[in-house]
Amino acid sequence: MASVCLLKPVRWSIWSISWFIKNRPSSILRGVQFRKISIIGVGLLGGSIGLAVRQRRLVGEVAGFVRRQTSLQDCEQAGAVDYATTDLLAAVSKADLVILCTPLAQMRALVRQFLPALERGAIVTDVGSVKAGVVRELEPLVARSGGFFVGSHPMAGSEKTGVLAARPELYQGTVCVITPTKKSHSSSVRRLEQFWKMLGARTLRLAPAQHDLLVSRTSHLPHVAAAALAGLVLDPRHPKSQTDLCASGFRDTTRIASGSPEMWRDIVMANHRNLSRSVDKLVAELKKFQTALQNGNVKAVECFLNQAKVRRDRWSSEAKILSSK
Amino acid sequence: MASVCLLKPVRWSIWSISWFIKNRPSSILRGVQFRKISIIGVGLLGGSIGLAVRQRRLVGEVAGFVRRQTSLQDCEQAGAVDYATTDLLAAVSKADLVILCTPLAQMRALVRQFLPALERGAIVTDVGSVKAGVVRELEPLVARSGGFFVGSHPMAGSEKTGVLAARPELYQGTVCVITPTKKSHSSSVRRLEQFWKMLGARTLRLAPAQHDLLVSRTSHLPHVAAAALAGLVLDPRHPKSQTDLCASGFRDTTRIASGSPEMWRDIVMANHRNLSRSVDKLVAELKKFQTALQNGNVKAVECFLNQAKVRRDRWSSEAKILSSK
Repeated sequence: MASVCLLKPVRWSIWSISWFIKNRPSSILRGVQFRKISIIGVGLLGGSIGLAVRQRRLVGEVAGFVRRQTSLQDCEQAGAVDYATTDLLAAVSKADLVILCTPLAQMRALVRQFLPALERGAIVTDVGSVKAGVVRELEPLVARSGGFFVGSHPMAGSEKTGVLAARPELYQGTVCVITPTKKSHSSSVRRLEQFWKMLGARTLRLAPAQHDLLVSRTSHLPHVAAAALAGLVLDPRHPKSQTDLCASGFRDTTRIASGSPEMWRDIVMANHRNLSRSVDKLVAELKKFQTALQNGNVKAVECFLNQAKVRRDRWSSEAKILSSK
Repeated sequence: MASVCLLKPVRWSIWSISWFIKNRPSSILRGVQFRKISIIGVGLLGGSIGLAVRQRRLVGEVAGFVRRQTSLQDCEQAGAVDYATTDLLAAVSKADLVILCTPLAQMRALVRQFLPALERGAIVTDVGSVKAGVVRELEPLVARSGGFFVGSHPMAGSEKTGVLAARPELYQGTVCVITPTKKSHSSSVRRLEQFWKMLGARTLRLAPAQHDLLVSRTSHLPHVAAAALAGLVLDPRHPKSQTDLCASGFRDTTRIASGSPEMWRDIVMANHRNLSRSVDKLVAELKKFQTALQNGNVKAVECFLNQAKVRRDRWSSEAKILSSK
């Protein structure tokens, strides 16, 4: 009898363990334990975070703050959050991770507003495309309320906007830059890195100013070039057949010009010094090409085209290797 | 007995007609009757023509001229032509449609070479991206041998090159510009239009010079901008993380910079006057934006971005309507 008594609990334990392994929340398995994340601004980026963490059950609860009543229904329809609210303090209350997903210019005011509800020890991050200003402003502000601010820039997006365009795999295979400072809380930096990795991103640490310099070239300059091209080529004063001659090359080169003007206005204004220098460099490249063209310098023209192809093909093959890892 | 005799042939005729309707060559149904087409240069564009006409049985025979022995095998592997040859005269002989698919700079010399083999009444066309020079040179040359030259510019392509990248649906839903002159043979123009339509393209007639002006903006300028961006951003003197920060926006904006430098060298040189003026206009747009940025003129920056988005979104929705027709 004694052996049976002993066996029974053992049997139950094994069953319990196997049941637990089978049904464990993936948050425990994967080592991230955010009880509640709060997404401030549930658009394409915020909504895609919500969809990804909810689908993978990475956090206990996902709250979403939106400004407009109509956005509440969109959030519900997209299934991007557990609950959406227009009450900022309620959205932030008890959250251990708060992610700012609004246009850059709104972040500071929103943080000031929600600080009274911020949990001590909570991590606050953002998804803004320019980091130096945001980090400089928000890091001390959040620290004063006992929270930890660390900047993020997931290099993901689309020319589409709004929560209805959100998709759970948006961050899969992308790079997410984390911009810690000397004052950053190191375990918060690590937890944040782990969070983005679980959304499928590869993380990269850069100083905020270095980040801003590099993205002024890789992201903000292409946006400006695409917008300049689209505005110029599609000028309604051109003959009607002008638009008929825009084919797939034009479509792809200008795709990002269809992005949100409000969002991009904030980005380019926040990074105006770096971007202005990058525009100078692009203009210099174009002028160099034009001079070769006007002089009938076929060698120089070919060299310009060839250099671009070689560099882009190399990048493209390396990027493929990285994304397939 | 007589009625049976009468009935029998009638029955056979009905059967024959229904068999013929079922098995008729699509060339007869669709009204194009080229006995033999000759593709001069079987790369992405030429190979895609070959695949399309062979798959749909639009012509009796497809010959392909290539320069290198190794290309013969590629043509065979791709199934783009009925036979490939390095013998130019054999490729052109007896063809009633000859399509020049080589880089622009090679066309004149090739036409001079194959003229002795050109059938009287044959249509000669090309797929070059610049038309004024080609039409001015080739129209009288071909006319002297009793053929009819009419320029074509199918607005299709890819950054990929070579016959192995060819696909039969490359021209589906694209625009193909036909550039007749006052001297053009009108029934050849119509036959050529019909040919491109059967490959899935929508045709558009433009004067050669007008075509060149318009494509300098919609196609050649985006190519130069993409190449300038790719060359500049991927400069190996930048820090390593520069390339890590190139995401999908950069990828699409610069895609066409991976196109063939040789082909594009010929295109930009052939359209240098129009292109140089277009570069001036792009530089002016960039400078206008930069001034607004430097002056902190948020309204002007937003207006620049908004105008580009509005124009591109309008084009994009109209282009979608056209391509779904």
